[in-house]
Amino acid sequence: MSSRPASVIDDDRRDAVRAYVNSHRDEFVAQLSDWLRIPSVWTDPERADDVRRSAEWLADALREVGFPTVEIWTAGGPDGAPCVFAEWPSDDPDAKTIVVYGHHDVQPVDPIDKWSFAPFEPAVVDGPDGDKLLGRGASDDKGQVLYHLLGLKAHLETSGRTSPPVNLKFVVEGEEESGSPKFTQLLKEKRDRLDCDAVVVSDTGMYGEGATTVCIGVRGLTDCQVDLHGPDVDLHSGSFGGAVPNPLTAMAKLLAGLHDDDNRVTLKGFYDNVQPLSDREREMIAKLPFDEARWLATAESRAAHGESGFSTLERIWARPTCEIHGVWGGYMLAGHKTIVPTDAHAKVSFRLIADQQPLDVQAAFRAYVEENTPPGITANVHFFGDGVQPYLVPLDDPALGAVASALGRAFEDEVLFTREGGSGPEAEISQILQAPLVFLGVGLPTDRIHAPDEHAVIPLLLKGAEAVAYLWDELAAQPA
Amino acid sequence: MSSRPASVIDDDRRDAVRAYVNSHRDEFVAQLSDWLRIPSVWTDPERADDVRRSAEWLADALREVGFPTVEIWTAGGPDGAPCVFAEWPSDDPDAKTIVVYGHHDVQPVDPIDKWSFAPFEPAVVDGPDGDKLLGRGASDDKGQVLYHLLGLKAHLETSGRTSPPVNLKFVVEGEEESGSPKFTQLLKEKRDRLDCDAVVVSDTGMYGEGATTVCIGVRGLTDCQVDLHGPDVDLHSGSFGGAVPNPLTAMAKLLAGLHDDDNRVTLKGFYDNVQPLSDREREMIAKLPFDEARWLATAESRAAHGESGFSTLERIWARPTCEIHGVWGGYMLAGHKTIVPTDAHAKVSFRLIADQQPLDVQAAFRAYVEENTPPGITANVHFFGDGVQPYLVPLDDPALGAVASALGRAFEDEVLFTREGGSGPEAEISQILQAPLVFLGVGLPTDRIHAPDEHAVIPLLLKGAEAVAYLWDELAAQPA
Repeated sequence: MSSRPASVIDDDRRDAVRAYVNSHRDEFVAQLSDWLRIPSVWTDPERADDVRRSAEWLADALREVGFPTVEIWTAGGPDGAPCVFAEWPSDDPDAKTIVVYGHHDVQPVDPIDKWSFAPFEPAVVDGPDGDKLLGRGASDDKGQVLYHLLGLKAHLETSGRTSPPVNLKFVVEGEEESGSPKFTQLLKEKRDRLDCDAVVVSDTGMYGEGATTVCIGVRGLTDCQVDLHGPDVDLHSGSFGGAVPNPLTAMAKLLAGLHDDDNRVTLKGFYDNVQPLSDREREMIAKLPFDEARWLATAESRAAHGESGFSTLERIWARPTCEIHGVWGGYMLAGHKTIVPTDAHAKVSFRLIADQQPLDVQAAFRAYVEENTPPGITANVHFFGDGVQPYLVPLDDPALGAVASALGRAFEDEVLFTREGGSGPEAEISQILQAPLVFLGVGLPTDRIHAPDEHAVIPLLLKGAEAVAYLWDELAAQPA
Repeated sequence: MSSRPASVIDDDRRDAVRAYVNSHRDEFVAQLSDWLRIPSVWTDPERADDVRRSAEWLADALREVGFPTVEIWTAGGPDGAPCVFAEWPSDDPDAKTIVVYGHHDVQPVDPIDKWSFAPFEPAVVDGPDGDKLLGRGASDDKGQVLYHLLGLKAHLETSGRTSPPVNLKFVVEGEEESGSPKFTQLLKEKRDRLDCDAVVVSDTGMYGEGATTVCIGVRGLTDCQVDLHGPDVDLHSGSFGGAVPNPLTAMAKLLAGLHDDDNRVTLKGFYDNVQPLSDREREMIAKLPFDEARWLATAESRAAHGESGFSTLERIWARPTCEIHGVWGGYMLAGHKTIVPTDAHAKVSFRLIADQQPLDVQAAFRAYVEENTPPGITANVHFFGDGVQPYLVPLDDPALGAVASALGRAFEDEVLFTREGGSGPEAEISQILQAPLVFLGVGLPTDRIHAPDEHAVIPLLLKGAEAVAYLWDELAAQPA
């Protein structure tokens, strides 16, 4: 038996919100299509003006909804990526303050020949989960930003209020698909404008398969290149083989030693700060429909594999990992050349779980390399930056409760928790703004974000708007 | 105290041979220089006519010495590499038959800009070990073939004989530096012409450092490429990392597992057929002057490393090894790309010691890969041909005794045994001709064979001629 989270929204209110949202479906789709026609690809310098146009478009839309303050900030100087900021204070002087985060830039469209439609000419077609809106950015992330506007309108129209029940601040950045290189600096600069009690991130998805879910965590990441150097010249393996250290053998041993027989990472202290999976979350994960054979087919892998004692979903979401992304060195062409080569190289990353710190893991890896490099081989480890911190919403976080209640009301369903295996700036946003952060997202794994044929499922975007309409009441109803 | 091997050559005879050889020094150098002017690079198709010219040159020289039968054979059809065959039966009907093996093709001269003289314009300069003759092929192998002719002339002149005391057959091939691809086929075709009691190979060197040595073994070789295939597409390591097998991790474990903590190769049965080093040979190896620091400087390596319980020379000469020559897979460019890649590749070889069989090692490696490839990864092992068999002259081989006696007489020195770490066709020659094989060579490690500035030390070539002059008597004197 599934159980819906408790909600402060009564049935009449729900009916009113739902009716408002559904009656504005065509208007919403038309509006989103307008926005999707703007190819806001910040990674392409030739599209910079389009990204600015996209910001202006959103600023106008926010003004139209009623935001009294709408500004366009740029990250890292006037030519930086345009970030839309909007603020609508509540009439209630005791109201909580909420920052909504999203982004209006979109992924590049390469390989363009793999698309079955024009990425910036949106169209509606039917699909297994309801009508789909086709277009780059439909799901990631314009559709998920825009349902916030529809949800807020629904909230105001059905509540009779003239301002939201929380002080609302929107921060919709323009360089997320470029890795937000200057965005956190912008957050720091604008820190005093962004005071808040919680952050709602709408840039993630749901589990799919009919489950109503809320994401509660993202993995962190730190990655590096390791270079091993042996002899200064390639040596004839007949004349020298077996008597000098081979950097490729040393690299193989180094990389092989990173996992033990239980596929646990062997770095000293690696698991010390990992928050263990709670029984409650494990139960929730176990409730999710998961067809391993289908999942493997998606991965185009012939077997599941990972840390002993954990399921596939637990391994991806809730456990830290180490992966090798590339290895090279020595003779790599056709045929044979029997040398002891001079060098070996590898790219290695660690995915992290709260409360692991990337810099701690970097230090542990450096120590591991130092300890396991044989005499005669010199090692160099180069980490690409300071890494990305993991983020995990505490299960008892009130804002998480509010999101679950709002989603449960919108979908009339039990709400389960998921996590994402990937990495985002969430931990840093939360730290800079000194506020807890929660996720509200209705994308599906089948939306093909970052890939050709991106689309969004229109009924889900409308459910997102519904959830938003409830969310501000749910948050307002919580004790301060 | 060093002790010279016993010899049948008395002092008078020695003095006569030495006087003959030394008085023909200038003639020998002029003759060799003539031959070195012919750029017989068989690997360069444009030099094919030069290689034919080189064969004709040698054929004429052999006729001039007195060989009644001189023929030019071609390996693999009329356009094949020309191999010079010459035969001079002994007048003694009970004489043993000896095949002398060498080659008249030379290595290419690239990189030509690294030479300090013109490779095919021989010249004499002085050097630390005596005058050097500069030129491609001076040491490898024209110089070592030509001292056989001078040695035979010295033998006949000083013994008063009109034919050699053994039935002499010369086989001087023209595609050795191309790996002798068709030479063994030629040997099989001409098998009935090549009946013999022993083969003398003059294509190796001495240890140098003033030691008088004879090579008694070469390592065999078998090498392969291993390909591991994981997922059919590169996967996002955030979405899939830690839950599917990574072919690079599997490759690292596979390669790391090839050596145990004592740096012994872990393949099942790998050492079963390895002839252990005898105490006598270990003592001889220990007697050789060996400066490990200097050796490491030559290798441009910062440490020695290898199988526990063996010295560096023993590791290179007398122990089988496994080396990794190349590894590649996944993302190998600048920066980072956090994928679980589809593929991992490696080039791996095994150097073999008699009586290891390349095909046995191939089977053991295939079994190892099969046993150690995790579920979800498919492995493919491709060996480059059937491999090269190792060869080891038994220490009690009579022909080895004869070579040691001849060399000891020529150098007036104790004769120590060495081996070579590399590989040659010796085992196959010995098998096809069903005869034991010994090495007689006076090249030095400093001769820069296969490299720019190849040269030979003239006094050593003359010592080679002297040794040859004694060798036929030493062999003839042995019981049948």
